[in-house]
Amino acid sequence: MSKELRIGMIGYGFMGRAHSNAYTTVPHFFDLEYRPVLKAVCARNMDKAQEFAGKWGYESVETDYRELLKRDDIDAVDICTPNNLHREIAIAAAEAGKAILCEKPLAMDTTEGEEMCQAVEKAGVPNIVWYNYRRVPAVSLAKQLIDEGRLGRIFHYRANFLQDWTISEEVPQGGAGTWRLDAKAAGSGVTGDLLAHCIDTAVWLNGMIGSVSAMTETFVKERVHADTGAKQIVEIDDACAFMCRFTNGSLGLFESTRYARGHKALYTFEINGEHASLKWDLHDLHRLQFFDHGDDSIVRGWRNIHVSDAEQPYMSHWWVPGLQIGYEHSFVHQVADFLQGLADGKPAGPTFRDALDTQKICDAVLGSADCGQWREIA
Amino acid sequence: MSKELRIGMIGYGFMGRAHSNAYTTVPHFFDLEYRPVLKAVCARNMDKAQEFAGKWGYESVETDYRELLKRDDIDAVDICTPNNLHREIAIAAAEAGKAILCEKPLAMDTTEGEEMCQAVEKAGVPNIVWYNYRRVPAVSLAKQLIDEGRLGRIFHYRANFLQDWTISEEVPQGGAGTWRLDAKAAGSGVTGDLLAHCIDTAVWLNGMIGSVSAMTETFVKERVHADTGAKQIVEIDDACAFMCRFTNGSLGLFESTRYARGHKALYTFEINGEHASLKWDLHDLHRLQFFDHGDDSIVRGWRNIHVSDAEQPYMSHWWVPGLQIGYEHSFVHQVADFLQGLADGKPAGPTFRDALDTQKICDAVLGSADCGQWREIA
Amino acid sequence: MSKELRIGMIGYGFMGRAHSNAYTTVPHFFDLEYRPVLKAVCARNMDKAQEFAGKWGYESVETDYRELLKRDDIDAVDICTPNNLHREIAIAAAEAGKAILCEKPLAMDTTEGEEMCQAVEKAGVPNIVWYNYRRVPAVSLAKQLIDEGRLGRIFHYRANFLQDWTISEEVPQGGAGTWRLDAKAAGSGVTGDLLAHCIDTAVWLNGMIGSVSAMTETFVKERVHADTGAKQIVEIDDACAFMCRFTNGSLGLFESTRYARGHKALYTFEINGEHASLKWDLHDLHRLQFFDHGDDSIVRGWRNIHVSDAEQPYMSHWWVPGLQIGYEHSFVHQVADFLQGLADGKPAGPTFRDALDTQKICDAVLGSADCGQWREIA
Amino acid sequence: MSKELRIGMIGYGFMGRAHSNAYTTVPHFFDLEYRPVLKAVCARNMDKAQEFAGKWGYESVETDYRELLKRDDIDAVDICTPNNLHREIAIAAAEAGKAILCEKPLAMDTTEGEEMCQAVEKAGVPNIVWYNYRRVPAVSLAKQLIDEGRLGRIFHYRANFLQDWTISEEVPQGGAGTWRLDAKAAGSGVTGDLLAHCIDTAVWLNGMIGSVSAMTETFVKERVHADTGAKQIVEIDDACAFMCRFTNGSLGLFESTRYARGHKALYTFEINGEHASLKWDLHDLHRLQFFDHGDDSIVRGWRNIHVSDAEQPYMSHWWVPGLQIGYEHSFVHQVADFLQGLADGKPAGPTFRDALDTQKICDAVLGSADCGQWREIA
Repeated sequence: MSKELRIGMIGYGFMGRAHSNAYTTVPHFFDLEYRPVLKAVCARNMDKAQEFAGKWGYESVETDYRELLKRDDIDAVDICTPNNLHREIAIAAAEAGKAILCEKPLAMDTTEGEEMCQAVEKAGVPNIVWYNYRRVPAVSLAKQLIDEGRLGRIFHYRANFLQDWTISEEVPQGGAGTWRLDAKAAGSGVTGDLLAHCIDTAVWLNGMIGSVSAMTETFVKERVHADTGAKQIVEIDDACAFMCRFTNGSLGLFESTRYARGHKALYTFEINGEHASLKWDLHDLHRLQFFDHGDDSIVRGWRNIHVSDAEQPYMSHWWVPGLQIGYEHSFVHQVADFLQGLADGKPAGPTFRDALDTQKICDAVLGSADCGQWREIA
Repeated sequence: MSKELRIGMIGYGFMGRAHSNAYTTVPHFFDLEYRPVLKAVCARNMDKAQEFAGKWGYESVETDYRELLKRDDIDAVDICTPNNLHREIAIAAAEAGKAILCEKPLAMDTTEGEEMCQAVEKAGVPNIVWYNYRRVPAVSLAKQLIDEGRLGRIFHYRANFLQDWTISEEVPQGGAGTWRLDAKAAGSGVTGDLLAHCIDTAVWLNGMIGSVSAMTETFVKERVHADTGAKQIVEIDDACAFMCRFTNGSLGLFESTRYARGHKALYTFEINGEHASLKWDLHDLHRLQFFDHGDDSIVRGWRNIHVSDAEQPYMSHWWVPGLQIGYEHSFVHQVADFLQGLADGKPAGPTFRDALDTQKICDAVLGSADCGQWREIA
Repeated sequence: MSKELRIGMIGYGFMGRAHSNAYTTVPHFFDLEYRPVLKAVCARNMDKAQEFAGKWGYESVETDYRELLKRDDIDAVDICTPNNLHREIAIAAAEAGKAILCEKPLAMDTTEGEEMCQAVEKAGVPNIVWYNYRRVPAVSLAKQLIDEGRLGRIFHYRANFLQDWTISEEVPQGGAGTWRLDAKAAGSGVTGDLLAHCIDTAVWLNGMIGSVSAMTETFVKERVHADTGAKQIVEIDDACAFMCRFTNGSLGLFESTRYARGHKALYTFEINGEHASLKWDLHDLHRLQFFDHGDDSIVRGWRNIHVSDAEQPYMSHWWVPGLQIGYEHSFVHQVADFLQGLADGKPAGPTFRDALDTQKICDAVLGSADCGQWREIA
Repeated sequence: MSKELRIGMIGYGFMGRAHSNAYTTVPHFFDLEYRPVLKAVCARNMDKAQEFAGKWGYESVETDYRELLKRDDIDAVDICTPNNLHREIAIAAAEAGKAILCEKPLAMDTTEGEEMCQAVEKAGVPNIVWYNYRRVPAVSLAKQLIDEGRLGRIFHYRANFLQDWTISEEVPQGGAGTWRLDAKAAGSGVTGDLLAHCIDTAVWLNGMIGSVSAMTETFVKERVHADTGAKQIVEIDDACAFMCRFTNGSLGLFESTRYARGHKALYTFEINGEHASLKWDLHDLHRLQFFDHGDDSIVRGWRNIHVSDAEQPYMSHWWVPGLQIGYEHSFVHQVADFLQGLADGKPAGPTFRDALDTQKICDAVLGSADCGQWREIA
């Protein structure tokens, strides 16, 4: 008989849906000791909370996260709020002894992140951050190939995350769908929202970054704020690019923007090693490009791998070769791994501590862009 | 308050999973009057049935479909058995007044299919066949563009469905994963299994086919039968190709095989019209290729459309632009449309009657291959 | 000191340019015993002939091919006329002891082709037909890989050649750029013009075809004839598709049309073997797609080979890896191989006799389309 | 009757071949007032010079460029030497009143480049630098679309030029094929060799760059020198990346390396504007990717434009739609435009003065990489 992991969800937006779907789907496709139970959803607005609970089958609702944390029938909380609330809720949840699944980025800055790490470590509660792209099968396969040593010495890593949804000056800052443009809620713009994903994957695949040099730009200087209805200065970064040196000696180049017309969510990375190279693109997330210099010279070429075979990561749980899965499955895999980690006592990453590295790099990136100098990562 | 549609599932294999996932997922992403309830699963093997029920949350199990059909708490049955059982079960289900969702192909042949059509029409029960690819968003978008008249007069249609999983002579015929190689269970080989999909889409997009000329081949002549352990002659078609003329005057070319090394599930179609053309490929099912001759001549080119925007079919129910969904979602959409059809009184297709057209074409294809002559579709 | 091969060019159109470019370019990139010398160009229209001679450096002009054939300073004639003149000129040239480079298709039909073969064989003159696509480096590489046995038993071959330039009813038949729509000049439509290329490559790569079943269509029934200014019935095939069986037991599927909106010159082929498969597309002629089932299962995928390395066919003569060559280079390679064959005494193909196979298959295709029956190739 | 432009070629390597091919080919495909005549080739090694002259039809040879410059029968010199000889030869040629076609990069540094500009401007001789990629038809089409205002305000420009040919430590520095690894001959590594191309295109398409921040790396620290046979410190940059701000307010990101396993000559650029975006890749140089936000929302997608139609830049001179040209044609186009410029009195770019901008940016890039600071372009 499976053990229950009773979930208290805080938030009901896009990520609330993605995570709820993961909790309900995981037992249908994975055989695990633990089984998520949707116990409660928490949101300030009672109507929204009830609607969401009805939709997804949460057994109860709360309007104050502090009440949620007091409940004995909640084993784990899932923090899906804007970034500026992560620290407060996570520390309270740790103190309440709850396992924590926190949306990314971990925090508003490294200082907050460090406090959060200390809180969960002191409390000894399981913790993970939703850098979900690690668990796209093609990305997991990239990790496996790198760990097998197939690439050899690494020379280059490059990644970008390009969108185009804020080009219009009519897009407001603040509010339900657009809090990511409000520096008070989001902390930063594309750096925390998009580059944080690129950095998490990069550090996972290629190790820590030692130093960075960055530039940022805000193309639309003023936008109406949804709260006030008035035009206000935009304080987030619309675009950010940085060069870096990894501690393994390889060079990195990263870019993110919301002004790349034609790209909806173009998260790509490429890694070039002595013996082989790998490329991936979120727009076709079920494919991995692989070049192996060891192939016969006359038939060398980039292999376009359709990652859908049972022996490839996670795919034995799904359909048959050739049939692709989608974006949401990365969350299902993260829940599966988190639950397996609970059972094994080997926590699945990225933990808060892992995610703190990404936070440090983001802070260095923003700091470098401010001062125009290279920054070392402590 | 939503109305229940209480499902009795017959079968527990690959399609049993795909359909069960659709029933459980649809209420989370669609607002519908009807809500599926997983009432019972039926399988000859009680252990298998119970395991499946436990996994998916079916409330009860049956080992005889006749018992299932007697139950008052079942509104609809889902037939996921091998093809040779469709007719018997469907006719009994119709007589029992159940709505029916039947796996494809509809039947072993046109005669069976006609009987099934008459049964459901006489009983007046809702009925649909699981030709799920119609409801891949990119395919639905193709239908919309054709219906809008963007292509003009149609000249050509071509489709293929290429796999490579039976190249090894060690693959048996008959048995759990390989009943599709046993003519007694499957009726035909790639024609009913794969070309039927191509034909259903083609008729939906381009209208009825008037005549066909086909060839088939069985590359591996004998295979061990899983039931007997003995080598037996393989009676299915390993490969089938056919030329045809649609009633709208366009030419068609179709091919299917399980011997196309390198292709796992390469279902592609292309349609060429006077003004525009469309292409699609299951391996990247979230993309539609579109060429519009109306574009400025210097910038004409095939547009690679990433079908993930809210205004594109079904996508407002899922994530945000750039984030793709997968294979299984086509089943979710079919359930959503079936339920909407129940509410509206406008049945979603393909109904049994629609699917009978595909059956007729398959029969003509196999008949033509046998005799080496063109065959008219009645 | 190199030997001269003194060329008499008959015709000055598209192919006249392509071949003249090949003759002038080949000595710059290949070290060969023979060197082409542009001795004379022959055309009925003296002004056109002189203009062409001036452009390309032909030393003299003729307006009657019979006069050209009488000249002692001509070693080889290049026949670039419409198809209906091939036979007459080729037989006369053979009788005059000239080497012959003849545009494809060889003849109007098999009977003509057989006469031409007998003429060159009787005269013992070197002869070749301009099926230039064999010598696109990626296609030559495909041949090499097949000959090395990398594909194993072959199951499937498919090819198409799709264009869209005759969709408009305003395109005339007959005349300078449009003689290919006039059955009297061209013999057939897409079958002789486009499918002949597909067939030549197929037979070269996969061996002879044993039987065919075809269909043709003429979508625009009447077109103004450039000679008369009057609307006349169109007698060529606008589109042709055929199924076939190769003598090695594999199945083939071929299609050609000038009504595939969006395709300018989409010549593609694919061959599926037990161990590996190959694909090619003229639109990106410098690439070959290769799938090798022998690759590690987790990293299997279609390899996209950029054929530009020195060890790949012909490429040591050109630039450096990554830098592509184009369409016209296939003609340069054919001249280089023809000249090498002269030096070696090992004639480069396709000879007239080789090209007669393609002619036989084209005739069977057109015959099958007429009668609606399968046709055996004698 | 056409006018002669009598060429004196200095050098006989890769670029000597590419340019000689352009001179011989251009009159066959373009109708121009001027016609190049291959008058003399100059190289220190008489045997090499004579072999090259024989191959290409140069009428005479010289072993000292000063002798070449004295000749009255030379109208223009083409400088194809290593970079460290450009300045000396170009200034002497200007003083001798010769037109000059100089290989890129213009010079070893900005100081040299400025002297060269002053020399040609003082002498009033026609001058051009071989940044050939501007005249790839797809790149020229990009320029046309930008000039037509189709992109609107530009936000981003990114380019890279990735190779993998120096990964092995066995590759020497200095010598015939490897002088580009010798800082004394080449001045810099990938910056002058590869990034210079990216910068020339970028400035042409998107205007001047105002400031840069760069990093460089030399992965293999010592290599045998071909001249001495001894291991020596490698002084060129193996890899270089830089961020920049264009004067139009857009952000740029550039990268080049010879350590990107799997890439032979991956020169790509992308430009993102308010209304549209463009992408190009040298590996498939005949294609341009174009995204137009003005397209109907349901059918928006990147258009894959096969640049082979007569109305697209340069293509009316070549074959028919669908048939691609290659790398070498960019040089043919440059010669055609240079000759047209002579006839019109409107010099074709990039002139020495245009190329000096690229030199300044390269110097700023290398300077920034040295000091780790942003650098303004004067």
